[in-house]
Amino acid sequence: MPVALAVDIGGTKVDAALVDAEGRIVAGSRHRAPTGAGQTPETFALAIATVCERATDAAGPAHRLVGVGVGTAGPLLGDGTHVSPLNMPGIRDLPLVPAVERFAHGAPVVVALDGTCIALAEARFGALRGVRNGIAMVVSTGIGGGLLVDGRVIRGDSGNAGHVGQAWVRRPSADDPVAATVEAVASGPATVRWANAHGWVGVDGLALAADYRAGHPVAVRAVRRSADSVGQAIASFAALLDVTTVAIGGGFSRVADDYLPLVEAAAHRTAVLPAAREVRVVPAELGDDAPLVGAALLAFTD
Amino acid sequence: MPVALAVDIGGTKVDAALVDAEGRIVAGSRHRAPTGAGQTPETFALAIATVCERATDAAGPAHRLVGVGVGTAGPLLGDGTHVSPLNMPGIRDLPLVPAVERFAHGAPVVVALDGTCIALAEARFGALRGVRNGIAMVVSTGIGGGLLVDGRVIRGDSGNAGHVGQAWVRRPSADDPVAATVEAVASGPATVRWANAHGWVGVDGLALAADYRAGHPVAVRAVRRSADSVGQAIASFAALLDVTTVAIGGGFSRVADDYLPLVEAAAHRTAVLPAAREVRVVPAELGDDAPLVGAALLAFTD
Repeated sequence: MPVALAVDIGGTKVDAALVDAEGRIVAGSRHRAPTGAGQTPETFALAIATVCERATDAAGPAHRLVGVGVGTAGPLLGDGTHVSPLNMPGIRDLPLVPAVERFAHGAPVVVALDGTCIALAEARFGALRGVRNGIAMVVSTGIGGGLLVDGRVIRGDSGNAGHVGQAWVRRPSADDPVAATVEAVASGPATVRWANAHGWVGVDGLALAADYRAGHPVAVRAVRRSADSVGQAIASFAALLDVTTVAIGGGFSRVADDYLPLVEAAAHRTAVLPAAREVRVVPAELGDDAPLVGAALLAFTD
Repeated sequence: MPVALAVDIGGTKVDAALVDAEGRIVAGSRHRAPTGAGQTPETFALAIATVCERATDAAGPAHRLVGVGVGTAGPLLGDGTHVSPLNMPGIRDLPLVPAVERFAHGAPVVVALDGTCIALAEARFGALRGVRNGIAMVVSTGIGGGLLVDGRVIRGDSGNAGHVGQAWVRRPSADDPVAATVEAVASGPATVRWANAHGWVGVDGLALAADYRAGHPVAVRAVRRSADSVGQAIASFAALLDVTTVAIGGGFSRVADDYLPLVEAAAHRTAVLPAAREVRVVPAELGDDAPLVGAALLAFTD
């Protein structure tokens, strides 16, 4: 059975698994190693090699490797295969292909943003099946995603298309443009910080979720503020790209049972074009598997 | 020689011309009729028919009609062939194909946004030649445009992709979301209104241009404010779509010799991703011909 070695490089860990053409993870092949701020190029390469080795060890005689797909936190640099993970200051402009190519045994190695992989996975097997123009969005520690345009997940000129977290929902200033982005306003940590600044005492999204359910007024305002901002970003994406469907996943999107309906209502309320008032906001379907499944699709379709 | 009948429907006028496959307008074939707020479906159809008839009258025996391409102010409705021009309250959900199909003599009729047509024209013959991911933008009475993604001008699900004027550059409110859009902040009329509100006495963009050159402080601030906002919108588009080049045309983009450099500097200053700090802002090349040339390309390529 043809399988791809899928690798997902995030801010705090690296995952690898064997994935078949139907998006199924081969039993026993999924492995994880921690990464993080203290990494050097050597320790980072070792973490990647370790999970790749363990994942490929799970291959049986019936498995035939078609290639290696790597999804990674952005931004991508160079020809779209180098990374400088934002939270790993010791790793700058690191080429990813050499880190994995010995596991490819001559088969292709393809690198893309993790958001691109998630969009590929949701488009093929998840909430964006049958959608021609849509967005996969992750609302979590950060806000990221990927874009489905005319039935194809797009990569942009340097592999960095899909940075949905960088849309303005405030007036951007030259001093601190980041503060005006939807990611800075509406991510999980940003929402917890806002609630703390407004008198709510709690440490994380789980506590915020509990207090939202209990009707704590600041928790309620904080969650609505996040949903409003994500919805506003979607309204501008809908105007620009004429999308019909936005699939949202990520831990913080589950902070409230009605988070996605709140996002959709905000998108419709602030839309300035008729088409944007019909955009549907739906739950992503592949959950934590999406980055690996999409990374495998890179290898299967390239 | 094969030619297309190209029609451009704007807020205040409708143009038609015969255009060949190289984007050249057949001599004597370009005609214009006024439209505007007082139009009924009947007078509007008559205006369109009149310019189409005059344009096709210019066809000689060597010309062979390949089809009719119609570019129109948005938004498009229905299956992407109906319009409700914002400034013609008497015309709602009007089908465009019946208005022109008798001039097609059985050849195809293709309808798209005017911004889509401008992007097609700039991509084929103008400032976006050889660009894989770019944006054509018009800064004028409004702000509109079209998107080039992976070498193709995209239309979206209902033909409305490319509404670049609807990106937020302020915090959107549910009461008046339009006010937060780059079009509402940075268009020609919006900039003149802002200058008037800040003590500048003048009626239009031409007067503003003269006073900008003369160094009138409010005129200078008004022009910079417009360029800043357009640049900020471009920074967010660059993050989302990973574009390399933005071609800007439209009357108000010529308000100052350094308007485009100011826009580019603002885009780089507010970019939060490396790729967005390298986006180039260049003058559109096809000027007033772009909508008709692009409308013709609809007929040639469909």
